[in-house]
Amino acid sequence: MKYKATVTIKLKKGVLNPEGRTIKRALEFLGYEVEDVNTYKMIDLILNGESEEEVYKKVEEMCQKLLANPVIHDYRIKVERL
Amino acid sequence: MKYKATVTIKLKKGVLNPEGRTIKRALEFLGYEVEDVNTYKMIDLILNGESEEEVYKKVEEMCQKLLANPVIHDYRIKVERL
Repeated sequence: MKYKATVTIKLKKGVLNPEGRTIKRALEFLGYEVEDVNTYKMIDLILNGESEEEVYKKVEEMCQKLLANPVIHDYRIKVERL
Repeated sequence: MKYKATVTIKLKKGVLNPEGRTIKRALEFLGYEVEDVNTYKMIDLILNGESEEEVYKKVEEMCQKLLANPVIHDYRIKVERL
């Protein structure tokens, strides 16, 4: 069966977001007052699996091995059947 | 009033996603069969405004001027009051 797993990868609280700060400064330069800017990444994976649980476990392994850096990132996984 | 605007920035259909392809290859190298990988960016903006419509219009301007490249990106904006 085919599934779509959506992984949300955010910097942990307290970890500086240089991209966010750069965007904030650029927006202010363009005349926009913004209190805070946070950027984060989403990854959509299309893959086959036996069940949602099996796919979730596989994607979690992918996060731990490759997709997210456990030191600075928090990640969330959502799995839906296609 | 304070609002949070969430901007989703995706590559347009047909535009190659090199990051996605690199991740796909790396996952295959680790032994994971994945049919497709797509990456995209999310930006959370905290800003003040008079109304949701006003904030939406301001963030749309920010997208056109800075946050998204109209040639290769599609973007979506969601505004919620804090």
